[in-house]
Amino acid sequence: MSTLSGPKGTRDFYPEDMAFQQFIFNSWKKTCTRYGFELYDAPMFEHLELYTQKSGAEIEKQLYTFEDKAQRKMALRPELTPSLARMVAHQGTNIRHPTRWYSIPRLFRYEKMQKGRLREFFQLNMDILGIADVDADAELIAAVIDMMRDLGLTSDDFKVRISSRTLLDELFNQSGLSKDQSKQLYALLDKKSKIDESQFFAELGQIIPEKETAENITACFSTESLADIEKIAGETASIATLKSLLSLLDAYNFSDYVMFDIGIVRGLAYYTGIVFEVFDIKKSFRAIAGGGRYDKLVGLYGGPPTPAVGFAAGDVVLGELLKEKGLLPPHPPRSSVYIVSLNDMQKSDVISVAQKLRNNNISCEFSLKASNIGKQLKNANAARASFTVFIGGDEAKSGNVRIKDMSSGNEIVVKEELLLPELKSKL
Amino acid sequence: MSTLSGPKGTRDFYPEDMAFQQFIFNSWKKTCTRYGFELYDAPMFEHLELYTQKSGAEIEKQLYTFEDKAQRKMALRPELTPSLARMVAHQGTNIRHPTRWYSIPRLFRYEKMQKGRLREFFQLNMDILGIADVDADAELIAAVIDMMRDLGLTSDDFKVRISSRTLLDELFNQSGLSKDQSKQLYALLDKKSKIDESQFFAELGQIIPEKETAENITACFSTESLADIEKIAGETASIATLKSLLSLLDAYNFSDYVMFDIGIVRGLAYYTGIVFEVFDIKKSFRAIAGGGRYDKLVGLYGGPPTPAVGFAAGDVVLGELLKEKGLLPPHPPRSSVYIVSLNDMQKSDVISVAQKLRNNNISCEFSLKASNIGKQLKNANAARASFTVFIGGDEAKSGNVRIKDMSSGNEIVVKEELLLPELKSKL
Repeated sequence: MSTLSGPKGTRDFYPEDMAFQQFIFNSWKKTCTRYGFELYDAPMFEHLELYTQKSGAEIEKQLYTFEDKAQRKMALRPELTPSLARMVAHQGTNIRHPTRWYSIPRLFRYEKMQKGRLREFFQLNMDILGIADVDADAELIAAVIDMMRDLGLTSDDFKVRISSRTLLDELFNQSGLSKDQSKQLYALLDKKSKIDESQFFAELGQIIPEKETAENITACFSTESLADIEKIAGETASIATLKSLLSLLDAYNFSDYVMFDIGIVRGLAYYTGIVFEVFDIKKSFRAIAGGGRYDKLVGLYGGPPTPAVGFAAGDVVLGELLKEKGLLPPHPPRSSVYIVSLNDMQKSDVISVAQKLRNNNISCEFSLKASNIGKQLKNANAARASFTVFIGGDEAKSGNVRIKDMSSGNEIVVKEELLLPELKSKL
Repeated sequence: MSTLSGPKGTRDFYPEDMAFQQFIFNSWKKTCTRYGFELYDAPMFEHLELYTQKSGAEIEKQLYTFEDKAQRKMALRPELTPSLARMVAHQGTNIRHPTRWYSIPRLFRYEKMQKGRLREFFQLNMDILGIADVDADAELIAAVIDMMRDLGLTSDDFKVRISSRTLLDELFNQSGLSKDQSKQLYALLDKKSKIDESQFFAELGQIIPEKETAENITACFSTESLADIEKIAGETASIATLKSLLSLLDAYNFSDYVMFDIGIVRGLAYYTGIVFEVFDIKKSFRAIAGGGRYDKLVGLYGGPPTPAVGFAAGDVVLGELLKEKGLLPPHPPRSSVYIVSLNDMQKSDVISVAQKLRNNNISCEFSLKASNIGKQLKNANAARASFTVFIGGDEAKSGNVRIKDMSSGNEIVVKEELLLPELKSKL
């Protein structure tokens, strides 16, 4: 082998890495479940066409593509939403909405590696389909907030920044911008966080040469609340929707977690209404999650018109934030119990104790080769066992076993037949 | 879109399919955990070389391969063991054995589709590394048996068929077969279950023209127990190991689940000792699981010599067997509670009740658009809710809510502040 590493941009998950990943995934599953979302999944690769139809031919540059042996063009999935829309379109009118689906897909993007970006990564996806009302947007944003809260993050750590694609359309229309100008402005807004303010306003001036219009748009982009923008634009339909959304989120008791931010655009062209992104409070990381309303996608794939709202949160940035905040838990025990066999014990006696514990859902291990007591205790430590049970020796003569609490070092001696209830009460 | 289906040989997992999959995966995780195995994972694709180095260049025909944008040849993983061996080799002497690892990888094989075979599938992999003693083989076979038992299968449903690669070597050596004859015999044995008996013995006669030798080998292949083969070959080293293994499995109380079967060869060349396969009792399906000892693989990838034993069980055949036996559970509730809002309630009141339940880990839903009571009840059924809680109406005037048990139809009325403890006690 020329290398013992996996492909560039991928990760090996040793048990300790996997424990961190599972801590995040289990928290995600818990939140999704209590919000009434059901798990689904789709193939790991799809016909390339599924992605180019949604995002244009240029998306192929960012994908891992291949031809199968029948010369069909395939791509490793870069996101799950196209598969979701395909699956929903495939069911046509058989599917009963509202649909509340979640998934934790493994995804692939062939892109330059940067902090917070890998070529193989995971996401949490949550989507509600079949509801056009803003109540679904509120429910989904509440779910993303509780996803963050369940991991131990608070409103001092992150904010959900909310805007609306249709609000921008309204503002650009009101200002008399052409379609081409609007398109350029969307692109400029989408890169706003990556350039400095002077460059932003210089480019804005190039797109909109009329001074008064440019000033008007600049004023809009400088607003910090929905009330500010309403003063400029009046109560447009989108502003009314945003106000309903914020009022619903207040009913969820989540006002502290959300803010209006006209700078949130979301690069993906398919959003049709509310859009949002979750950032750490200092915006020192990339977006942790992002999503919004996409009412046209199921229709694009030939399905019945289906309003939809969803978000995706990646594992990489979130993992970095949790590490920074010290919120990742210690590596849990591999086994709750390690059985140390004293010299006079038969293998069959050890196995019999182990199986009794395992049959009662207590994880346990014992040495798989003849080892002295010191070596067995080393193995117990390597297994990060909570308790060591010593069988055999003097205690066995009076029908007892010794239990050692590995964190405190305390030891107790109990009757053999009380080992199981004793361990059950301690674990 | 020309098609709304995913690629050939892949599956869409709608929530009901996913619930079956999760039933199997959760059972797998539970068994692995109580046996002290830790979860790990590796990239979904690897350098093609990782697979050709282990299995030869001809393996490429069965793989999904592609070139990345730097012209490196990659393959979607067809099995996880090469990645495991690479990861262990990569750590060199840093890794502390025994290592007890498990994973539930998604895998890809480009092969003709048949009953029980798909191009995209899942496996349970369990491996113990660092132990040369047969105790590790016994522990692993015990784990595969408990994996089957935890899913509800009994010794009337399946058997673990055990043999040894070195036993066959010994028998072929004793009979004076050449290396080439041995190799042909392995290939013949490996396809034994796919051809009829007369063809098997005809081909055997072609490989071994000497009548006496052929009869001797035939006698070996016709044995049905370890005692039978010992009568022919004496107690060879492999037979002694197999006897120890069966005696250990008896200590696990698993003698009913295992049998000696000299016909188990395992096509993969890398096995070096005990091999085994799990079959349904009638052998009406393909193998459910298979594995054995592979002491050379970590060394092959440049790591330190590392004895190892492992098995893999696929999700497809096992799922078919569980379906046939009626062991798949009904589709669980999407939400435990559906909140039905009577006409006089505000959205904010409904949300507030929902969040109180969710904050206490009770999954719940409510209507995300204005709906009459009949429509809300339909949604409660669609969510397969265990309980419906009616808020508002006459009961609310006296500070009460109504709870309906959706399976029995029984209703009770409780004080608003007792809703949470009441539901907690029922769920």
